Amino acid sequence: MSGLDRSRKQLHLNLFLMSTGHHEASWRHPKASPQHAADFGYYARMAKLAEQAKMDAVFLADKYRLNIMTKYRVIPQLEAFTMLSALAAATERIGLVVTASTTYNDPYHIARKLASLDHISGGRAAWNIVTSTGDATARNFGQARHLPHTLRYERAHEFVEAAIRLWNGWAEDALRLDQEAGIYADMSRIQASDYEGKHVSVAGPLNLPRSPQGVPVLVQAGSSEDGRAFAARWAEVVFTAQPGIGEAAAFYADLKGRMSAYGRRPDHMKILPGCIPFVGDTEAEAKEKEQELNELSVSEYGLTNLSALLQTDLSGCPLDGPLPYERLPAPEQVQGQQSRFRLYTELARKENLSIRQLIIRTAGGRGHFTVAGTAVQIADTMQRWLEEQAADGFNLMPPLLPSGLEDFVHKVIPELQNRGIYRTDYSGSTLREHLGLKTEAVIPQVYS
Amino acid sequence: MSGLDRSRKQLHLNLFLMSTGHHEASWRHPKASPQHAADFGYYARMAKLAEQAKMDAVFLADKYRLNIMTKYRVIPQLEAFTMLSALAAATERIGLVVTASTTYNDPYHIARKLASLDHISGGRAAWNIVTSTGDATARNFGQARHLPHTLRYERAHEFVEAAIRLWNGWAEDALRLDQEAGIYADMSRIQASDYEGKHVSVAGPLNLPRSPQGVPVLVQAGSSEDGRAFAARWAEVVFTAQPGIGEAAAFYADLKGRMSAYGRRPDHMKILPGCIPFVGDTEAEAKEKEQELNELSVSEYGLTNLSALLQTDLSGCPLDGPLPYERLPAPEQVQGQQSRFRLYTELARKENLSIRQLIIRTAGGRGHFTVAGTAVQIADTMQRWLEEQAADGFNLMPPLLPSGLEDFVHKVIPELQNRGIYRTDYSGSTLREHLGLKTEAVIPQVYS
Repeated sequence: MSGLDRSRKQLHLNLFLMSTGHHEASWRHPKASPQHAADFGYYARMAKLAEQAKMDAVFLADKYRLNIMTKYRVIPQLEAFTMLSALAAATERIGLVVTASTTYNDPYHIARKLASLDHISGGRAAWNIVTSTGDATARNFGQARHLPHTLRYERAHEFVEAAIRLWNGWAEDALRLDQEAGIYADMSRIQASDYEGKHVSVAGPLNLPRSPQGVPVLVQAGSSEDGRAFAARWAEVVFTAQPGIGEAAAFYADLKGRMSAYGRRPDHMKILPGCIPFVGDTEAEAKEKEQELNELSVSEYGLTNLSALLQTDLSGCPLDGPLPYERLPAPEQVQGQQSRFRLYTELARKENLSIRQLIIRTAGGRGHFTVAGTAVQIADTMQRWLEEQAADGFNLMPPLLPSGLEDFVHKVIPELQNRGIYRTDYSGSTLREHLGLKTEAVIPQVYS
Repeated sequence: MSGLDRSRKQLHLNLFLMSTGHHEASWRHPKASPQHAADFGYYARMAKLAEQAKMDAVFLADKYRLNIMTKYRVIPQLEAFTMLSALAAATERIGLVVTASTTYNDPYHIARKLASLDHISGGRAAWNIVTSTGDATARNFGQARHLPHTLRYERAHEFVEAAIRLWNGWAEDALRLDQEAGIYADMSRIQASDYEGKHVSVAGPLNLPRSPQGVPVLVQAGSSEDGRAFAARWAEVVFTAQPGIGEAAAFYADLKGRMSAYGRRPDHMKILPGCIPFVGDTEAEAKEKEQELNELSVSEYGLTNLSALLQTDLSGCPLDGPLPYERLPAPEQVQGQQSRFRLYTELARKENLSIRQLIIRTAGGRGHFTVAGTAVQIADTMQRWLEEQAADGFNLMPPLLPSGLEDFVHKVIPELQNRGIYRTDYSGSTLREHLGLKTEAVIPQVYS
């Protein structure tokens, strides 16, 4: 009835909502509506379209500081919990992935808000677990310095364990609802968490009953060594930036291979690389769409951004000339994004790129996989990634919204459905059901 | 057009949503639906009904710990931010009052969530500022002890000031949206907060543009000396528990009299005492409804609750006998709710009440004003409170939901409208407009 071919591996699709689109210059495009970037109706229409297309979930990233490039680019505007709760009321079936940091929150609040969102949405809540970055974030929470990487992950492990204990504190049958006897709850079925960690302590229990999913779906996107270890232990969905199928397949094999150490099976985790699709009726049209956006990147923004990355003021340089290699620092002197510095300068040297060309070349993808082509070409690519174990699906990042989403939904989705690798209707009501994940998968990690 | 008589003072009505109703035994009533207490649709239907009745706002209380009486009574279930954000999407005009504690939160998160809710709802957000109670709450946030009263209020003042600075950090004209030039924002119109207090520090700025109301409506309900000083400085709406018109008028005069010290005018604040209405077609029917609920209170719950309050185990006592006065502690030995202890024991002695009668007598009101009568009688009462400066309106606390709300909306609302003291339609789109409050009212308190 749902039209899917159960003998074939199924593709999962998550829509990564992002103001005017994922391309940094998207807001400058004539089809963009930057004036609606804080307008709930704008996001609700896109979430409903993703639901019509039977996607697994919509996802919102979240940061707790102002983007330093705010002068030059539209910023994500609305807070993730409020937005996704409102979207829960505007939709019926699609999953809702909310980002919340373990570094600047308390597990009681986060567990409770997620359980509440799971109740409100009828079992569609997921938590994208992040640890935040940068001292600028710390200063918004009365702290001078961001927690170092290792301690951040130490805290994140504790935080997730505490949250799962809170969720599992209420048994499914805890509510007696005996109006005659005046007994509302069976207190023996509601347990305190009594979690005491090095970073996080919480007594519990939560003050709301077990939600439809019990434990909301756990999502994670870190790909450092600490991040992979974290994902292998906890993550049920992984977002990742992979430039091509080779790198993606290696990442897929590595991450799924680490799971057995935590008593988990490979199918307890769905890996969804980011994908930036440019859809055209012809390949040429798709490439033109990509080129059109890339050219909008050459502005003060592109130059300021590149200056920051190369730690060199490029403002006086001719755009059509080369990088001022003699003024660049040595790679080993670069603080922070050293690997990105090497990538950019090596690319420019190897391909003999002008500053303009380098900006264009790096504008759209943020390191994520970009594909420009017809619906058939994009479906071919996605199917290949799925079948060659490079992905269980994709985190869809339309470069321009809403038009890039409309293109994908109206052109690529039917092609995926025709191939029997993507649902034509939802078969369950919860996000766990959409993803083919069981609640039980995450429980033994805490209680074994 | 809106049908209101502008020459007459207008009544403001806020609906205090509470699972099956405000009477502690409401969930046991045959018309109650305790099984829907975590069901979003149940609350959405009530919020829509309140909106049809043109009420100013719906309000959700919130606590960060499990109610110790959970065995015996339905608990409020859903978290306030997620619920009210979802209700924002399900309604169009009614205000949304979210409770958030200044003791167990960070101003960056709270200011941001409220601004986001204000964007999502088109300017309908309000913040009920609380400081939380009890060590059990503290233990859910890794702390052994709750902050003492004075320090709690010290922190609350700082927290609100920091939040207002965050909201005011974005000027209305900060977004340039110049697609041609690639300039999104005018950074000179986005200011850091740089707030450094004793308890709270936040750098800012927020990462979302100024919301429709700029500053969400500030609501408060403390009535201690610290609480009144706080309200006089910050509150634009005050919820309060007053047993009768005399006490309410004295409170009203006291609080409004304190405002000039902060450069505020009396009409910068709307005082809304709680009101528990039992509506009947006859007075006798209304009294029967009250009696019916009160009698449902005599259960293990009533006895356990009374035992806790009197710090004496009453489980072996005959319900129709007197209190075991000889076993009660002396009032001055009672820790905590000493004034409540005196009130209860003096009431029982003076009126010669049995244990059963004492439980019934104290079950419904939680100290709030209760009125049982016909629509005309209730409208008379409300009008008198309004005209005699005991109230600017009421925080409506239906004893049984949803039927008590339906009774009020269908019977009392038209009576109030006929008298020209309550709107027949909204005249503005924001909650500030519904309440007749200006944004500017709260700003000088920080920036003067």
